[in-house]
Amino acid sequence: MPPDFDRLRVVLVETRNPLNIGAVARAMSNFGFLRLRVVNPYDVAFREARSAVAAAPLLQAAEEFASVAEAVADCTLVVGTTAVQHRELQHTLRPLARGAPLIRKALASGRVALLFGSEKTGLSNDDLSHCHWLIHIPTRQQHLSMNLGQAVAVCLYEISRDVKKAPAKKNKPEKRATAGEVERISTVLLEALHRSGYVKANAVAATEVRVRRMVRRMELSSEDAELWLGMLRQMLWKIKNER
Amino acid sequence: MPPDFDRLRVVLVETRNPLNIGAVARAMSNFGFLRLRVVNPYDVAFREARSAVAAAPLLQAAEEFASVAEAVADCTLVVGTTAVQHRELQHTLRPLARGAPLIRKALASGRVALLFGSEKTGLSNDDLSHCHWLIHIPTRQQHLSMNLGQAVAVCLYEISRDVKKAPAKKNKPEKRATAGEVERISTVLLEALHRSGYVKANAVAATEVRVRRMVRRMELSSEDAELWLGMLRQMLWKIKNER
Repeated sequence: MPPDFDRLRVVLVETRNPLNIGAVARAMSNFGFLRLRVVNPYDVAFREARSAVAAAPLLQAAEEFASVAEAVADCTLVVGTTAVQHRELQHTLRPLARGAPLIRKALASGRVALLFGSEKTGLSNDDLSHCHWLIHIPTRQQHLSMNLGQAVAVCLYEISRDVKKAPAKKNKPEKRATAGEVERISTVLLEALHRSGYVKANAVAATEVRVRRMVRRMELSSEDAELWLGMLRQMLWKIKNER
Repeated sequence: MPPDFDRLRVVLVETRNPLNIGAVARAMSNFGFLRLRVVNPYDVAFREARSAVAAAPLLQAAEEFASVAEAVADCTLVVGTTAVQHRELQHTLRPLARGAPLIRKALASGRVALLFGSEKTGLSNDDLSHCHWLIHIPTRQQHLSMNLGQAVAVCLYEISRDVKKAPAKKNKPEKRATAGEVERISTVLLEALHRSGYVKANAVAATEVRVRRMVRRMELSSEDAELWLGMLRQMLWKIKNER
């Protein structure tokens, strides 16, 4: 977890459902953002929300404020979130993927508040007046409004997205089969096919070419080549001896 | 909503909490992926989950299956999700941001299944044996496991994220074998191996998983799958009848 992450404040404004606050805490913990602030939650018992799962300590440490102004007072950048695209916004509205790099940049030198409004109404005009600009998650026109916990998860995923470019862990062994190994597979497979009556007398050469090409298209690893060879040899042995 | 999105199948395997299924439906609807499949959900009343909010029609239309094999049979790419990074995975494991472009590419020419396991245990080894590769959402080492609805939201956000920057479509995308075709190859191959004495009595399950994975690693074209199936069927016929 990069130390900059400790400068982000997730601010939930007038959240109604305590389960949503717990779900937000869990997503924050997943992505390594541990500083939650709540402004006038509807349910004072939110700290016990079971939906926080392993993020109970984060929820316990949440700071409570009576107004948005107080909740963002120590932040150098305040970013609001909105699902609504049709209301007349006075603010610059950025898709999340454009806004996230700016948030990361601001976190390098100061605290950033990321505001989420209530489930029913989102951020009010008064709340928005504290924001420098807004982000939205691009969703379908017919169904814009996301669940609060899911919206927070997506935002934090995007903000933490490019921090470390983890390479794919390949379990596929990189060592490719040699041409000799591949040819042994073709040979055993072809003998098994001959003895099974798969190869028609008038198409021997054509079938052999076809099978050879097919085996090469498999682009086998050395390990898989060995596995195939063992299986085919066993089947061939059975075909030859069990009569 | 790009037409390709209609080819994605979100597959929930043995989900325990119907509210989570509803939350998944809502996230799907937000991002424009409308095809949900469920495999053996614990609660049969999942279709009434209130958490779906405006996604009730999507939930009503969810397809129900008795096995992962059936749920992915018509898909050309099967991708599993996992939070666990320490268990010995036989699969290539990609961070979401690396896997999503590959999923988008596959959606250009065929159906893709994205599998999510149960809340408690994730995908089983048997479930994983149907997967071509796996993705994980990079989360904090101390708190890896995400809420199911949030994990789905983040995955679908990422898959829909770069649509405009999607890689150029190749002229003739090779038609990939469906999971059903691949599974038929595994089935015939396994029967031939059983009857040839290749499978040891004390290692039946392990061998089956190993063979399934190997067949999936071949990443067969539809044409080659047909060729393999024909050859294996002929060999099996010979092994069964010629004694």
